[in-house]
Amino acid sequence: MKIAVIGIGLIGGSLAKELKKQYPQATFLGIDHNAAHLETAIAQETVDTVATLSDIDKADRVILSIPVKASVALLPQLLDRISENCLVWDVGSTKKSICEAVASHPKREQFLAAHPIAGTENSGPQAAHLGLFDGKPQILCEAKKTRADLLDWAKKSFRQMGMYLRFMEPKEHDKHMAYVSHLSHISSFMLGKTVLEREDDEQNIFDLAGSGFESTVRLAKSSPEMWLSIFEDNKAPILDILTAYIDNLENFRKQLEEGAYNDLYNQLKNTNQLKTILNGIKPN
Amino acid sequence: MKIAVIGIGLIGGSLAKELKKQYPQATFLGIDHNAAHLETAIAQETVDTVATLSDIDKADRVILSIPVKASVALLPQLLDRISENCLVWDVGSTKKSICEAVASHPKREQFLAAHPIAGTENSGPQAAHLGLFDGKPQILCEAKKTRADLLDWAKKSFRQMGMYLRFMEPKEHDKHMAYVSHLSHISSFMLGKTVLEREDDEQNIFDLAGSGFESTVRLAKSSPEMWLSIFEDNKAPILDILTAYIDNLENFRKQLEEGAYNDLYNQLKNTNQLKTILNGIKPN
Repeated sequence: MKIAVIGIGLIGGSLAKELKKQYPQATFLGIDHNAAHLETAIAQETVDTVATLSDIDKADRVILSIPVKASVALLPQLLDRISENCLVWDVGSTKKSICEAVASHPKREQFLAAHPIAGTENSGPQAAHLGLFDGKPQILCEAKKTRADLLDWAKKSFRQMGMYLRFMEPKEHDKHMAYVSHLSHISSFMLGKTVLEREDDEQNIFDLAGSGFESTVRLAKSSPEMWLSIFEDNKAPILDILTAYIDNLENFRKQLEEGAYNDLYNQLKNTNQLKTILNGIKPN
Repeated sequence: MKIAVIGIGLIGGSLAKELKKQYPQATFLGIDHNAAHLETAIAQETVDTVATLSDIDKADRVILSIPVKASVALLPQLLDRISENCLVWDVGSTKKSICEAVASHPKREQFLAAHPIAGTENSGPQAAHLGLFDGKPQILCEAKKTRADLLDWAKKSFRQMGMYLRFMEPKEHDKHMAYVSHLSHISSFMLGKTVLEREDDEQNIFDLAGSGFESTVRLAKSSPEMWLSIFEDNKAPILDILTAYIDNLENFRKQLEEGAYNDLYNQLKNTNQLKTILNGIKPN
């Protein structure tokens, strides 16, 4: 079996490591426009050889792990080139535009739209590691449009990585991700920006970061390329939830200014229920 | 030695445990308006006996660990009652109002304004533990106004807990905390509120939380009583930085709406420098 990984970053590299564990005899082809990433991936034996898109016709499985916008542009050409029993899946953080890009492609059934909820703020092949997906959800979109034998293979493989599967329609997926993930990233990036603009003394940022800043701003360390692509691709739901967030902040500011402390207290108290949701539903 | 702890929560309880390690012969008096907290603290042997404010004249050391507003109201009366070699210190997240409250008190030199940067989103005596302060900064304000022998004792004791000391003026402290800590909490509370309002399915919040939400919203689990008191007490610097934050979010929304992707990219890229500040300066 030949497995090609297009984009050897945290996710692509970690998937390659997991599949290598499952298929020790397989050959892994690394494709990336970043030569340093390829070198790292070869050195760490995440992939066996460097390849290019012209080698795609020899692959049995293709992992597409590049920014969303690039995936949308590349995927139709990829499908054009693959052999008839090859499966391609992507791992992007938005799913509507990618599903639309292949909706009428003759090889649509050889594609699976997937989103493992397993990123960290670290990126690049040096961050890739076994176990990244253990206990994490894998969201599959339009799974019924993928050929049954290829879908079964993928489901089995993802479950072997420790993932549990959830099924969503692309538009629903993108809306929920805007709420729960994309807004968090914008909130964090802008928090970091605001503090950097105001706080002249970096030692203060460091010393005081344990008081809340460090966790809240963690996501502001994320890859700008990847996140700009997500924001652009999922613009409408993001603008919608971002507006709701700004409205809540404006309202908080107004209530604080006016001394409406009972109203503020009720907001804080009510938001505390997240504790139950995040801890309570969690299996461990 | 008798050590009184007023407010047996995460910080008060953890300080008591550390001091018990340093002074195994000392007697620890617990004072709290919450009977359940007192029971927990007695059961966990964090304090030895339950006491009231009328016992304060027998104490050699008093830890004041209650919400800021309550500390400001109580502290002058506390100083009225203590004996001449007793040291009182508070651990509040703002320092200007507390220093002002005792500025002209005849026993001002028996008070030390302190702020250990060591909270977590968990609260209550059950969350108290040894080691909480290890490697963390302890901010001392107006330290020169504290009597030398009492200050020396406190500095030695804090260092034995593993803390490193930083000295700031109260107004500066409060400004920096508004930037680095208080804004993070507002950002997190309002993020949680927004997502709770929009996301009907709690299972989605749970399943997708690993994609960024979980860490960004951690602070929204914090105590409403404590944080409302901080927001109220530090209103002016908070309103100032909150306005700057909202402006940045508005600007982000406008640029996304208009497709100003280069500008957005530069903002994200520039904010990435936090990685260096938060990792690079860190001693470990």
